Amino acid sequence: MVKLIVDMMGSDLGSAATKEGVRRFKANHPDCELVLVGKLDELADMEGYEKIEANDTVGMTAGAMEVLRKRDASMVKAVRAAADPEMHADGVISAGGTGAFLSAATLILKKINGVKRPALVTAFPKLTDEGGYVTILDCGSSNENTAEELQQFALMGSLYSKAVYGIENPRVGLVANGSEEGKGSPLGKEAYALLKEDKKINFIGNVEGNQVLTDYTDVVVCDGFTGNVLLKTTEGVAKGMGKEIKKAFTRNLASKIGYLFARKSFNVFIDKMNPKKTGGALLLGVNGVAVKAHGNSDGENFESALNVAYKLAVANIVAKMQEGFVE
Amino acid sequence: MVKLIVDMMGSDLGSAATKEGVRRFKANHPDCELVLVGKLDELADMEGYEKIEANDTVGMTAGAMEVLRKRDASMVKAVRAAADPEMHADGVISAGGTGAFLSAATLILKKINGVKRPALVTAFPKLTDEGGYVTILDCGSSNENTAEELQQFALMGSLYSKAVYGIENPRVGLVANGSEEGKGSPLGKEAYALLKEDKKINFIGNVEGNQVLTDYTDVVVCDGFTGNVLLKTTEGVAKGMGKEIKKAFTRNLASKIGYLFARKSFNVFIDKMNPKKTGGALLLGVNGVAVKAHGNSDGENFESALNVAYKLAVANIVAKMQEGFVE
Repeated sequence: MVKLIVDMMGSDLGSAATKEGVRRFKANHPDCELVLVGKLDELADMEGYEKIEANDTVGMTAGAMEVLRKRDASMVKAVRAAADPEMHADGVISAGGTGAFLSAATLILKKINGVKRPALVTAFPKLTDEGGYVTILDCGSSNENTAEELQQFALMGSLYSKAVYGIENPRVGLVANGSEEGKGSPLGKEAYALLKEDKKINFIGNVEGNQVLTDYTDVVVCDGFTGNVLLKTTEGVAKGMGKEIKKAFTRNLASKIGYLFARKSFNVFIDKMNPKKTGGALLLGVNGVAVKAHGNSDGENFESALNVAYKLAVANIVAKMQEGFVE
Repeated sequence: MVKLIVDMMGSDLGSAATKEGVRRFKANHPDCELVLVGKLDELADMEGYEKIEANDTVGMTAGAMEVLRKRDASMVKAVRAAADPEMHADGVISAGGTGAFLSAATLILKKINGVKRPALVTAFPKLTDEGGYVTILDCGSSNENTAEELQQFALMGSLYSKAVYGIENPRVGLVANGSEEGKGSPLGKEAYALLKEDKKINFIGNVEGNQVLTDYTDVVVCDGFTGNVLLKTTEGVAKGMGKEIKKAFTRNLASKIGYLFARKSFNVFIDKMNPKKTGGALLLGVNGVAVKAHGNSDGENFESALNVAYKLAVANIVAKMQEGFVE
């Protein structure tokens, strides 16, 4: 049975959002055990759940020092519970600040043996007829990496892509400013040389920004700074274009009539592009499932994050990472 | 009068595309003098233009060495003509390989006094009701930069934004993985400190990937590697979403009817997102207008590139750069 620890206080929208998310998730996964962490009075209406009291929160921009100091913060208590061997928990979910969550997960769950640096992973829908997801890492856990770290990201991403999406031999690409070998930042060139020789992964070479969503690769590897830019740019363009689509449908009477006819079909597409539907990001390389829901998660978004954590626990991702990093 | 030198051989689609572009441009700018560089037999039907014979081309992946070696290549001859004082030319346009064009422009037109490194500039439409363009640099002329180079990009971008878009005091942002000061790559943090103290520009701090198209800034500064990723990711997402829009409109009978009504309104938006409409990229920081049209330019795209070059020449961008870099 899967057991997940849930930080109920992290969302910008308050515990109403996380509670709705938990209820929605639980309706579809009655078998999954959830432990709720937060203010007990706010959680009074959540009956039948194990609860852990926590009366403090960490700030959205908090880092490692605040995580260590705020021992009564719901996020910190949630991660500690996930790390506690007596809890037998599979993972932890929080909508709190990314920096704090990464610090807490790394410091408390601890890195998997052999992993140099955990990586923040995001999965994007491929914009192709076949669909599927491309796994991108690191999306901003670090802001500077070594070539060896990038090499490890490739392995972590491959193990993840196989375990979660069932892709047998995931194609790994390295983000560069050109497709040919020899292109790339100085760091990228160094990483290219390591990836090319790595027998544990299926390296297919450089991948450019315009290829990320095209099913050219299954796993996209980059340093955390570049990954953060790539992720946020994609979200920004998708959001901006979403607004333009809305504008195009409301521009005049004809376009409004058009919308009535095309609405259902467009909702399929708009759903696909909604970054909140994918349930946030997760941290790979630590001893436990650690999913970071969007900070402004509503009930539906938080449910998605719980779904991701559940899926990772069922896929036994942590054990697979641990095995993958045994030399 | 504006005089532009045109490499007629660079487009992947051959001289038919560049010839169409020249004819379209000339119809709207009869006052602008164009000098066509290419195979004379291919240009035989272009009457009334000054021509320069060139019978070779450089490869799409060529670099500086090939540029120096291929003295009879149309791109090289075009750039040489633009640099020739006796030609009194204002600029040069080519749809040939980016690397070769950057090398040729830098080596032959030479850097403006005081400029450490020229920058490749792209302008993106802001996805806001007010419209306008955001100027992004460097988009891939370098793959590694110093903080001082980023500082210069900020000045070049500001001068450009003012001269071409008439923005009086352009807001400059630095690409980072977080909005607060202290975020960013090690290079970014160093550049932040320089930009903050620079009286010549209006620095407003960090800009994240999802803010680039939102009118948060007028000028977006980054190293060439990051800029290339940002540019190509934006193009890739826009293209992918364009395909999804098409799919959404053709999914079923209702959506097809919807398209008939909404088509005109959508074309406004699709036009805005077409990267080819903006006419390619340009190199700032050299002694001459240097515009790189898309490699697969058709007549319309090539016309856009000619329009950009014309606009830059009329705005006297080179003289303004030269003045801006006088200490």
